[in-house]
Amino acid sequence: MSNDIKIGIMSNDIKIGLFGYGCVGQGLHDVLNNSKGFRSNIDTIVVKNKHKQRRLPQDAFSFEKNDILDKQDIDLVVELIDDAKEAFDITKTALKNGKNVVSANKKMIAENFEELVALQKNHGAGLLYEASACASIPIIRTLEEYYDNELLESVSGIFNGSSNYILSKVINEGLDYPSALAKAQALGFAESDPTLDVGGYDAKYKLVILSGHAYGIFIKPEKVFNLGIDNLNEPIIRYARDQKLKIKLIAQVVRLDDKNVTAFVLPKLVNSDHPLYNVENENNGVIVRAAFSDEQIFIGKGAGGHPTGSAVLSDISANSYDYQYEYKKMSQANKFLFTNNVTIDIVAAGFNEDLQKIPFVSIQSQKQGLIEGKVKLETLIALQNEIRSSGIFIATTGEPEVLHTTFKNKDALVEV
Amino acid sequence: MSNDIKIGIMSNDIKIGLFGYGCVGQGLHDVLNNSKGFRSNIDTIVVKNKHKQRRLPQDAFSFEKNDILDKQDIDLVVELIDDAKEAFDITKTALKNGKNVVSANKKMIAENFEELVALQKNHGAGLLYEASACASIPIIRTLEEYYDNELLESVSGIFNGSSNYILSKVINEGLDYPSALAKAQALGFAESDPTLDVGGYDAKYKLVILSGHAYGIFIKPEKVFNLGIDNLNEPIIRYARDQKLKIKLIAQVVRLDDKNVTAFVLPKLVNSDHPLYNVENENNGVIVRAAFSDEQIFIGKGAGGHPTGSAVLSDISANSYDYQYEYKKMSQANKFLFTNNVTIDIVAAGFNEDLQKIPFVSIQSQKQGLIEGKVKLETLIALQNEIRSSGIFIATTGEPEVLHTTFKNKDALVEV
Repeated sequence: MSNDIKIGIMSNDIKIGLFGYGCVGQGLHDVLNNSKGFRSNIDTIVVKNKHKQRRLPQDAFSFEKNDILDKQDIDLVVELIDDAKEAFDITKTALKNGKNVVSANKKMIAENFEELVALQKNHGAGLLYEASACASIPIIRTLEEYYDNELLESVSGIFNGSSNYILSKVINEGLDYPSALAKAQALGFAESDPTLDVGGYDAKYKLVILSGHAYGIFIKPEKVFNLGIDNLNEPIIRYARDQKLKIKLIAQVVRLDDKNVTAFVLPKLVNSDHPLYNVENENNGVIVRAAFSDEQIFIGKGAGGHPTGSAVLSDISANSYDYQYEYKKMSQANKFLFTNNVTIDIVAAGFNEDLQKIPFVSIQSQKQGLIEGKVKLETLIALQNEIRSSGIFIATTGEPEVLHTTFKNKDALVEV
Repeated sequence: MSNDIKIGIMSNDIKIGLFGYGCVGQGLHDVLNNSKGFRSNIDTIVVKNKHKQRRLPQDAFSFEKNDILDKQDIDLVVELIDDAKEAFDITKTALKNGKNVVSANKKMIAENFEELVALQKNHGAGLLYEASACASIPIIRTLEEYYDNELLESVSGIFNGSSNYILSKVINEGLDYPSALAKAQALGFAESDPTLDVGGYDAKYKLVILSGHAYGIFIKPEKVFNLGIDNLNEPIIRYARDQKLKIKLIAQVVRLDDKNVTAFVLPKLVNSDHPLYNVENENNGVIVRAAFSDEQIFIGKGAGGHPTGSAVLSDISANSYDYQYEYKKMSQANKFLFTNNVTIDIVAAGFNEDLQKIPFVSIQSQKQGLIEGKVKLETLIALQNEIRSSGIFIATTGEPEVLHTTFKNKDALVEV
């Protein structure tokens, strides 16, 4: 094996135009260089900042996006930049030019999901984005290829590696929140502006993408409630420790009945029997519940240049075999609707006077700094800015109230 | 944008010819009857025994295999019978007649793997068998579509639900082995002749199949060492309890270096940090280790009519989209070789005079009824019948000695 970077083209190789050379871009480059079974080459790398020190010399880069987008013999655009708006622009132009695109940008995809599906259809070009949700876990392809949506009860899990890393440090090792956050940032797990991660936005974008592949619906990110771990406080940490529970930031999309699904991102208190109880640090874990296949759990690295690069490579490889998402569930007869009209069990921790503002439907217990009870998701959404700014930490303690009518008699004998 | 996206062609009302109406056949029937997103019909069911009481009336069945194999308008043969020899016969004839086949018969596939791949190629018909390995866990498709074999370090896990169920009952609940086995049989997890399950043969067939999709090699089942849990004895149970370890029956294929892989099925002692420590009862768990994606874990039901039926449905669905395994890794340049020339760490439990027969390379500790030490896998294989009949229980305590030369410096900075 050689450690040399291959720039320049060998015949029969796929020619890649790469946007971005940050953590994931470099990770992909390493993965590509070490793959023998699969041949492809990076033809052109376009980056934005002309003055940034990089591990490749300056002349390895271009700073003009049309060097990729207008270049006839580039077969595939791999988009790995941070800026969602710019990424959408690049992706749109590439698809319109008939070029296939691989992207890891969850925000860009979640915010433009419907348009991106239409663009693919109208221009006959494909967009793959396995790396956008839970990095190395092959969850999008699995949802796309498996699981009839009528039979799918829920998709849930730990979708954000940075938050999970911070929770591991705080809950298991007793670090305080700012130190844990600083450590996550130093390791490159969290963004320099960590709100995307710790506020549950990153998990929400992934949830929106998975909801599309699970239930064939486009949910606007702004309709989905997300509360993260940034309000982690002493009362909730003590509560969790006393009851030997862990706190995990869980994104979930749940089928409520034959017509409706709900989706939200909220911390959850889990006991040692929960399948994600031992998923620690930067790992992600996804639980897929379906009527007949029962419960499936997928665990793997959810962050980091190499795991994400490896997921990008799997898309590059799939693209070379002409794989495209078929969005099968979007063409099925039964259309699901998204709703926030659902009751959830929560525990809220904070100052007593702030806690009074939460419109509980019923209260189960109440003590200094803590209220447990039931609340309507739609009323929480109306208050989300107030909750964030008041420092209240909210965690769910159970599953949303579901009413699965379709499969009641799945165990009944089949009749002829 | 309209909601009636159709990318790709959906062939509705596929006509299925079904062989076998046991646990999995009935499970598939239930799953098909409840699926709305996907339409297909069982046209003909062929079973063997004319006098068996079934949940459908007698006239729902045919007893003549050519009623399926010769019928022009049956698109797909679904083979769910027990008899591996008969299943191979059916599969071979169907493929030769240009009919695609879905099978769940691990023994049939493992024993005829190379010929089955050739038959598909020569007759342009496809054979899918996701349900044959770990039932509802989509592991074959994942290995096939992801993971460059050069980067794959190992695939290992709990592949047999019945054995795992028995181990859970014995280790966690203190049942004796015969009671646990009887309970597994009563629940339909274990065959009436349980040797296939508890002797590690079933896990071995699955391992052979996964090795093909992981490393592009055909391994003859008889070359692969398998020892199961049927010799479970007091000394090993006490040893595990004293050290707070659990016993899991683990099948594993491991890349030793650039050229060689080894594969075997043996019980393993695992501590609470092991990703499969909490995988209990009839659940299966698969660990995929790769250089860049790191460690991926898949957990799900490994037995039962509905989970297996659901995996069969996913193949029926994939078939309707013309999906076929491409066996990509078999056409890659680097060919792996299978070897048993590897040293493993074991603990052997039984009568002292029997334990003396095990040709340890080195002994680490020795006490009444127990020896811990290193042993060559190839010397164990030579003794396998003697080990089985003498009642010795063997468990591995670590990983096989591997020498990954290829990716030593994967974390080093890339140089130009």
